[in-house]
Amino acid sequence: MTSHTHYLWFNTKQRQEIIDITEDVAKAVEASEVVEGMVLVSAMHISASVFVNDHESGLWHDILGWLEGIAPWDPRRYRHNETGEDNAAAHLRSLTVGHEVIVPITKGKLDFGPWQRVFYGEWDGQRKKRVIIKVLGE
Amino acid sequence: MTSHTHYLWFNTKQRQEIIDITEDVAKAVEASEVVEGMVLVSAMHISASVFVNDHESGLWHDILGWLEGIAPWDPRRYRHNETGEDNAAAHLRSLTVGHEVIVPITKGKLDFGPWQRVFYGEWDGQRKKRVIIKVLGE
Amino acid sequence: MTSHTHYLWFNTKQRQEIIDITEDVAKAVEASEVVEGMVLVSAMHISASVFVNDHESGLWHDILGWLEGIAPWDPRRYRHNETGEDNAAAHLRSLTVGHEVIVPITKGKLDFGPWQRVFYGEWDGQRKKRVIIKVLGE
Repeated sequence: MTSHTHYLWFNTKQRQEIIDITEDVAKAVEASEVVEGMVLVSAMHISASVFVNDHESGLWHDILGWLEGIAPWDPRRYRHNETGEDNAAAHLRSLTVGHEVIVPITKGKLDFGPWQRVFYGEWDGQRKKRVIIKVLGE
Repeated sequence: MTSHTHYLWFNTKQRQEIIDITEDVAKAVEASEVVEGMVLVSAMHISASVFVNDHESGLWHDILGWLEGIAPWDPRRYRHNETGEDNAAAHLRSLTVGHEVIVPITKGKLDFGPWQRVFYGEWDGQRKKRVIIKVLGE
Repeated sequence: MTSHTHYLWFNTKQRQEIIDITEDVAKAVEASEVVEGMVLVSAMHISASVFVNDHESGLWHDILGWLEGIAPWDPRRYRHNETGEDNAAAHLRSLTVGHEVIVPITKGKLDFGPWQRVFYGEWDGQRKKRVIIKVLGE
């Protein structure tokens, strides 16, 4: 069994932002020399997501607007924000979309369907955040 | 380490449909001869889900109705649909429910609780779609 | 490749409850002697979740209240409950938050960011429920 670990750093300009990290994941898989296996891509923060979807800017806009409906930002709604935070909504958005994905690796490549791409979803940015990429296989 | 890859194809009659794929996953695990490991079951499309829940048709009806509340279909709500698509809601439903699961394999079997089953959730069907089953273990 | 399987049992006092299981997961990883790999933590029931988030009681309160908005408990809303159950909402909450996570293992430890912890989310408790912890790696 082979394993390979790589970390990505982000510091987004916007507080909420969606970033395509597919090439970073593909490079980590290539560096691992794993031919058959899986790669875990996981946000290391509790106010962010990693997800698989479509590289289309209209959809990213839709996702951000939809999450405002699912878990409205308004800090007065949440008891968590009595701790001095204002980002309870970012936690709930991370729970909704998930904080990690596993991508299958077949014949040395990400085994994706035609439109699938990996994204980092920043729900409370403008500060340093990290994603782990962990490849496992042979 | 052993790996085994199998693909399932779907072309649903309904645009939204829930299909029990537990037997297909169990067969792939059997074919892999993996005794201890994990099996990844992942939709290869961005408008579908794979999830674990209950084999009960009333619940499937509830899930479809609930998703209409979570992300209403109405194409006029979404900027993605300005690209000529009308399925932005299917993308958001895929993000809500998730597009993949990992099932543990113990002593050569899916290590499930009493009611757990694996489902393919088609949120924009009536065309060819695919799921990957990837077994990893020994 | 090494694998190690451990089960946790729960019987919560409240019907909905959030329990920090990070130490149990860390102990299973230690027992496995896996240095590089992944650990799957997965609810074995279809009315519960496993998720990664923050150890903060205000936030747990927010999560429970938020889920009541996402999938209201009221049994009359759901066809599933015509089977004699009253817990359709617990199924939908399990789908929203997810029933499992994969945590990366690096140098023998859970490779978590500063605030990440693993939780069991019980959405229909007051009876025996189980979580599987499955470590895979080398």
